[in-house]
Amino acid sequence: MRDDQEWFTETYPHHGSALSLRIKRKLHEEKTPFQTIEIFDTECFGKLMVIDGCTMVSERENFLYHEMMTHPVLFTHPCPGTVWIIGGGDCGSLREVLKHPGVQRATQIEIDERVTRLAEIHFPELCAANGDPRAELLFIDGIRWVKEAAPASVDVIIVDSTDPVGPAEGLFNEAFYRDCLKCLRPGGILVQQSESPLFHLELIQSMYRVMGRAGFAHRQTLFFPQFIYPSGWWSGTMASAMPFEPFREQAAVAKPFTTEYYSAGIHRAALTAPVFFERAIAGL
Amino acid sequence: MRDDQEWFTETYPHHGSALSLRIKRKLHEEKTPFQTIEIFDTECFGKLMVIDGCTMVSERENFLYHEMMTHPVLFTHPCPGTVWIIGGGDCGSLREVLKHPGVQRATQIEIDERVTRLAEIHFPELCAANGDPRAELLFIDGIRWVKEAAPASVDVIIVDSTDPVGPAEGLFNEAFYRDCLKCLRPGGILVQQSESPLFHLELIQSMYRVMGRAGFAHRQTLFFPQFIYPSGWWSGTMASAMPFEPFREQAAVAKPFTTEYYSAGIHRAALTAPVFFERAIAGL
Repeated sequence: MRDDQEWFTETYPHHGSALSLRIKRKLHEEKTPFQTIEIFDTECFGKLMVIDGCTMVSERENFLYHEMMTHPVLFTHPCPGTVWIIGGGDCGSLREVLKHPGVQRATQIEIDERVTRLAEIHFPELCAANGDPRAELLFIDGIRWVKEAAPASVDVIIVDSTDPVGPAEGLFNEAFYRDCLKCLRPGGILVQQSESPLFHLELIQSMYRVMGRAGFAHRQTLFFPQFIYPSGWWSGTMASAMPFEPFREQAAVAKPFTTEYYSAGIHRAALTAPVFFERAIAGL
Repeated sequence: MRDDQEWFTETYPHHGSALSLRIKRKLHEEKTPFQTIEIFDTECFGKLMVIDGCTMVSERENFLYHEMMTHPVLFTHPCPGTVWIIGGGDCGSLREVLKHPGVQRATQIEIDERVTRLAEIHFPELCAANGDPRAELLFIDGIRWVKEAAPASVDVIIVDSTDPVGPAEGLFNEAFYRDCLKCLRPGGILVQQSESPLFHLELIQSMYRVMGRAGFAHRQTLFFPQFIYPSGWWSGTMASAMPFEPFREQAAVAKPFTTEYYSAGIHRAALTAPVFFERAIAGL
């Protein structure tokens, strides 16, 4: 029934499962100094970017991830003027950040310029805000960037990375979090994609612990669906040195831009942890 | 990399995608008068029941579906004493319903007795409440049951069926909904599994319309993750002739039983529709 030439399959070897997407054709493949990038045209999900064999972005359902990695943190910070995006080379998070009129500067720090150049060609809708005068695109190592940046120079850091293996491994450790905390202004918030609540509970527990040791005494996880990521259920975790205030709900209701998934109601809903998750992070 | 003898794969032919679970071995296969049932032992999801090639229940993550198909509707109804489960042959919904001390009678109406007999063998934990004196297990056609049942004889009807093809097709049409409405006492609520918000939006729109024509003037959809169902994101839709009251939040907080996913907070969160969904059902 299945012809493997017509399918892209990502196997989740530690989770005894695999997701396949039917492809019309492969549009591109290249090996960069950092990773292998493939672009497919799929039958039902539009274009698909794959990095080192892992699905990254599909045209059809990337809105879930990109909206949830940006709007919740931006409506939680009282007044986000400066935003860094570590990773995020497809530019989808950058586009969502720049929908906020209060953001004066959004800097995307992506280690692999080819991700962005290929996104410009194959996912132009995600790159629609790249020409915004408030946008800055850097192609350097995000770990080094936060290490060398001036203290108290940013309001929100969005870590929009691949899984914690390969080039992204250093984005999940204490030294990186300490550098992020140093860079954040008082009241600043970090948000990081934190994998699947179903598959990666131990990783999330570890993130809570390591973030805590680095000085991020307060963490809040956001839950959302994401079909092409392992288990179809994903999360982002916000971290702050100070207790989280309730998010700016009136501003979220009155936001001057459109979304497909995010709303003030979805923001509230996404902050609600399932019972098994509450139990897993209790006391961390 | 993939050896198809070691994997069970469900292809979603209209959605250009497929999910595979690595199996240790097939434990059982039989063709009943209604359908083909297979039981597998999987590597990471415990036992798995498959009906007509579609994954139904995995040991590891069925709690999501079973809790969300039962507790929200039971904490929405002001006083659910009598509950029918149409389908639900694995008995997982029955077990959750019987956790509510106020339920005096829960009747499971499953057309295919073999589903239940195999669940008793392979998923004994789901059948843990089958011996409860309040439980009644019938193996008859649920469509005929609601057609012939006395008016105003039940408080909550849970339609826990397979997809709307094959034996379950008749559970998604106006005649069935009219019969359900006739059976419900005043204030009664129907809840039905309503497929994937991402893949089956048109089906959900159609359900809203058909339920409305049948007299269920008010519908509310619940959203939850479910890895082994198409898109990993699933829904249940509650329907009532009268406007929904807020759910009994204090009772949900004080519930005298444990859950893995459901809580009063998750109940509230699950009722929050994404922007694209709100738009799709507006005016229906």
